[in-house]
This record gives sequence, structure tokens and C-alpha cells, in this order.
Amino acid sequence: MHAMKPHLTLHNQTPIPPSAGARRVVTLPGKFGMRLGGELQDVQVAYESWGQLNAAKDNVLLLFTGLSPSAHAASSGEDPSTGWWEEMLGPGKAIDTHKFHVICVNSLGSCYGSTGPASSDPRSGKPYGPAFPKLTIEDVAAAAHALLASLGIPRVRVCMGPSMGGMSALAYTLMFPDGVDVLVSISSATHSEPFSIAVRALQRELIRSDGAWAGGHYAAGEGPREGMRLARKLGMISYRSAKEWSERFGRERAKDAGIDAFGIEFEIESYLESRAQSFVGAFDPNSYLYLSRAMDLFDVAEHGGSDEKAFKRLHIKQALIIGVETDILFPLHQQQALADALKRAGVDAGFEALASRQGHDSFLVDMERFRPAIGEFLATL
Amino acid sequence: MHAMKPHLTLHNQTPIPPSAGARRVVTLPGKFGMRLGGELQDVQVAYESWGQLNAAKDNVLLLFTGLSPSAHAASSGEDPSTGWWEEMLGPGKAIDTHKFHVICVNSLGSCYGSTGPASSDPRSGKPYGPAFPKLTIEDVAAAAHALLASLGIPRVRVCMGPSMGGMSALAYTLMFPDGVDVLVSISSATHSEPFSIAVRALQRELIRSDGAWAGGHYAAGEGPREGMRLARKLGMISYRSAKEWSERFGRERAKDAGIDAFGIEFEIESYLESRAQSFVGAFDPNSYLYLSRAMDLFDVAEHGGSDEKAFKRLHIKQALIIGVETDILFPLHQQQALADALKRAGVDAGFEALASRQGHDSFLVDMERFRPAIGEFLATL
Repeated sequence: MHAMKPHLTLHNQTPIPPSAGARRVVTLPGKFGMRLGGELQDVQVAYESWGQLNAAKDNVLLLFTGLSPSAHAASSGEDPSTGWWEEMLGPGKAIDTHKFHVICVNSLGSCYGSTGPASSDPRSGKPYGPAFPKLTIEDVAAAAHALLASLGIPRVRVCMGPSMGGMSALAYTLMFPDGVDVLVSISSATHSEPFSIAVRALQRELIRSDGAWAGGHYAAGEGPREGMRLARKLGMISYRSAKEWSERFGRERAKDAGIDAFGIEFEIESYLESRAQSFVGAFDPNSYLYLSRAMDLFDVAEHGGSDEKAFKRLHIKQALIIGVETDILFPLHQQQALADALKRAGVDAGFEALASRQGHDSFLVDMERFRPAIGEFLATL
Repeated sequence: MHAMKPHLTLHNQTPIPPSAGARRVVTLPGKFGMRLGGELQDVQVAYESWGQLNAAKDNVLLLFTGLSPSAHAASSGEDPSTGWWEEMLGPGKAIDTHKFHVICVNSLGSCYGSTGPASSDPRSGKPYGPAFPKLTIEDVAAAAHALLASLGIPRVRVCMGPSMGGMSALAYTLMFPDGVDVLVSISSATHSEPFSIAVRALQRELIRSDGAWAGGHYAAGEGPREGMRLARKLGMISYRSAKEWSERFGRERAKDAGIDAFGIEFEIESYLESRAQSFVGAFDPNSYLYLSRAMDLFDVAEHGGSDEKAFKRLHIKQALIIGVETDILFPLHQQQALADALKRAGVDAGFEALASRQGHDSFLVDMERFRPAIGEFLATL
């Protein structure tokens, strides 16, 4: 299976990631039923892995991603390009690939190798587009579980994820209570609060309001580029923090300021523009809509009537919950509540509140705080 | 002058406020030079007033508004319709019109009677539109000062404003140091931080991205309705607070949920939609762009090299600075910094941090906290 060639099913303007050399794709033959109805056929799940699976198969660290990254969390011999968590994951690093066999999964519904709206439906030979069934975080977890089953891995030592990936890790742990030893949830939550739903709903509306979205039926190479650009700007406003920006940009004027009365004037505007431009074309708009909505819908309480009752079903030995003080999208009180609910359910749950200034995105950039928080915990396992 | 009929110069889709019966409009004959260049001809300034001007003319409370309200802050015999600060202003209320002669000014650049982009340029007979000169908060203050001069009022007892109105009040106090006794600044700041600039820049981009904006040259009854609707949603996200929404909406589903996969699902989405719909058509999009940008540009430090140096020029006797813990657009530390800078400059400045949960909008809704904070201070004057 590891020798299987990456099966590229990308459509539309979504570029193939710079190098897909380390990516593996497993096909799950037959029907894949979705939690809220509908089914997919011959689902593909893309992943990358690092480190060796030991003989007992008990050193697997399953890593879920946030909404937009691919499975390329770190470089490897097969793919030397920088991964999205390059400084965190590797030999001797916080997520030590000498110790763990790390498997990072591309989420179902994404556009980096796993089946998503841009993939061809094997039954029609055409992209699913908006006919892709309603997606939930539980479907993402179920696809990852099926991947691991196909790889002959019945249980993971650590199930981990940041942001949406933390929700996927929670869902996996709830759905497969005998399949996880230790949970690590980073800047995530048991459910979405109205503020984050409002931000994501508006992002989705910006994409859908772009005429080029065409109800999701855009053609290859086309699609809502302007909507994606605007949605990414709103995303950045929610991903970082006012504190970081005040310290970093203050009232600095942009080099390209003053061209017109309403154009870019301040450096913060220039920064958002460049971040937004680099995102356009790098992610399938329909994938964005499906995954964004899945985050809104996720709610641990649906697995038992309340968070605590849901967590009483868990068999995990330990959990580590990490959050950041400046996060406005997944605010710190949500990580505190997650840790508290786990403790009330009898789980040995640690809680780390980090003073990072970069908001929700801190886990990607504040390595000085996140490396020790994650590394020291994993070293105890 | 008080008998002058309101001179309606509204164009485009901007509706005339429900009743303009109490509105007065003063024309300032000749040229009105703008701070960053350009000039207007025969500027009109709309206002409403309550209470009696005393013989000494020393009981005037000058009230500036936030970005979008008109001068109709409260009802009166001439206009019984509810004003935007109805519960705050009136006989025996916190802003007591038995004591003060209150004058609320419609900001220059707005669309409720004062000259703005939707007004006709007397030189051409056509609306200014995007040819309206670049607007600053100082221009808003200068127009208000010219209004008071035309009314024969040389000095105000209290200069007050919330949000953008707080900036206008600060500008007025800095520009006319002998014209103000007491400053009251509510949920405002000496300058805009990058987070609020980012939010407003994206709002403006949403308006400008709507093809119907047409570079600002939209025709009467047309214009960027969709852009205004989306910009208002983003505005609401920044005006309220995550805490309020979590308590108020939680994960409540909308009545109209589930019509399509990406449409409204949660009550928070339904709330934003209804708030946005009611704003569309009620405010001129070009006015919005000009006033929004003016807030970004405002910086007290430009009046002296630093906030403290600027404030050393003031002759005010007292100031009250009020802020709200949950405000993310004008965060509390900005009001603290404003009060501190005033104190360092020798002003007797009080600072009130209110625990309101409704974020930046609290001054409009949390009357239980705002009425005593404002009323008890004004009663001491």
C-alpha cells in the first residue's frame, strides 16, 4: 500500500501542492456512509507518515490538521519541501519521529488527495461539486479510522490535532474509544460558539456571493477567486490577535499607500492583502465551504447529551489540552471547559494556557511556547 | 435659523430618516477647506437640539455621533420618533435637557442632512460621489464648530461622543482648546489600532467589490446593496461580543435552518442577516466609505507629536473616559491609555471601565451601566 502512487483527483483552480512525493493515498472500496445522510463511493484518504511503526504497532501518533493544510506536516526524504508543522515534527523534535510513527491525514472533504467536492464521483466520472453530501467532523474521523484499519493499525498511542484537527481528534476518540490511548487537543473546542460561527458563516457567504461560485458548479480553473480572497482576509482577522498586530504593525503606513482614497493605506492592509492573495488558488472553494460548515456543526454533546456524559464513554488514559490567551476564534475558556469536562468524566487531563500573542494561529508560529508544551508531554509517554 | 426648513440633499438609495421634523440645517456660505486638501462649497450642517440655551450661553452639551446615526438622538415635540440614544437623553434623564442645551450634530460626510458624498455639489448641481474630498475626523469637528459659531455659541460646557463621535469630540477639543470645558469620551480612542483598521478596511472592500458600487458613481436608487449587507454583518461581528452571543444564542438553531447546505443554520446567522438587511438602504455607501476611512486616519498624536504633548495644549477642566471590557473594536486598554495621557498632561480625567457584555455597542444598549456612569458625572457639573 505504501508503494501506491498518489492518486491525484484535484480539479478546478486548486493547485497540486508543490511536491506530493511523500503522499500516499488509500482507497476504501465500496460505499462510505455519511453521518447526516448520503454516501460516497470508493473513498480515497491521503496521508503522509514519518518514523517507523514498531513491531507491537503501539507507537502511532495520529495527527489531524486544521481546515486548510494538507497531510504534508513536515519534510521527509521523499518530499524535502517544508511542511506546515516543520519545526514541530521530525527526528528529535517535539513530536519525535524516533519515538512515534506519525500519520498525518488529509481530511475527508479537503482537496489534497482525500475525496472531497473537487474529486470525481466514480459513479459519474464527474466532480461531486455541490452534490457532495453534507460533511461532519465525525465523517473526517471515520475516514481516518478506515485508513488506519486498512493499514492494519487497530489503536493509536496518541490522537492529536490543532484547531479543526482538535475537533477531528475529539470525534475520533469519542467514536473509537478503544482505539486511542492519549488525546492531545490544541486550540480547539467541544463545539463552536456563535462568534466563530458568525465569522465562518460570513466567510462562506463571501465565497457564495461571488458570481463565479455559480452554486458550486464552477469549471476547472475558474471559481470564486475574489470570494476566496475576501474570505481569507476575514479568516486572518480571526486567526491572529489585535495585540500581535498592534505590536507588529502599529500605525505603520504601507509602501503602496495612497494610490486611491479607499485603497491600501496602512501596513496591516498590505499584510492582509498579501496573505489573502497567496491563499487564492491554493484551496478548493467548495472544500472550504464543506469543512467550514462541519466545524460549525460539531458538538461533543451530541455524543451523550452533554460533554461530560460523552466523555464518560472514553477509555483514554491521559489527555493534554492546550489553548492560547489571545485566541478569539477558539477562546481559552473553551479549552478550559474541555479539560474540565474530561476531568469530571474521570480522565487525567492536563490543561496548558499559553501566553502566545499570535491568537488562534499561535500553534503554527509560536514555537518557543508550543514545542515545550507538546514535546515535554509526549516525552513522558 | 431655527425656522429654516430641513434642506434635504439625499440621493441614491439612502432613505430620508422616518421623521426629519426636528432637524435644522445651517448653511456655511463660501468655501470650506478640508484638512487633507480639497474644499466644499456652501457646506450644510444638520443638527437637532433639546433643552434651552441659557442667557449666559454656557450650558451647551455638544454631542457627536458614531459612524451611522443621524442627529436624531432623542424624540422631541417636533419629532416624536425614537432617537438612537432615547433612553439617555431628555428631561430628567442622564443627559438632562432641563440642565443642558444639547446639540447633536450630523457628521460632515454623512447622509442625514449634512453635506456628504450623496449631496449635490452647488458648483455642478450633481452629487459629489467619489469626487468628495478625502475626509478626516478633524473636518467633522471643524464643521460642527462652524455650526456653533453660526448659532452664536462660542464655547461648550460639555463636548461628548461615543465611538467615532468620541474621536470627533477629541478632535474638537484639540482644535478649539478654548471652546470646551469638559470632555466626555465613550468607547473611543486617540487612534485606530491595526485590528480595527483591518475590520474597517475589509468592510470597505466588501462595498467596493460589489459591482453596483461602480467606483462610487452609482445612480439614485441603486448602489452596492449586497456589499453594504455583507459589510454590516462584519460590522456586527466587531460591534458586539462573543460573550454576549454565547449567552444569548448559544447553539440555538434558526427557524429557517437547513434550507440549503450552506445557508442559515444557527440563530446567530439569522440575527446577523436581519440586522444587515435593516441597514441596507438606510445609509449611503459612499458616506460609509468616507467616514470609515476617517476613523482609520484619526490620530491625536498628529496634533503634537504624541498624545500627551497634544493634550498639553488643552484648556479643559475635566474629562470622563468610559470604556467597556468586552469591546474588541475600541478595546478597553485604549480608553485607559487615553485617560492616562490626559492625566499626564495635567487634565483631571476620570476613567470608568464598565463590565457590559455587549461589546462596542454597549453604550447603545446597556443603559443600566451607561446611564449612571454618564448621568452621575454630568450631575456634578
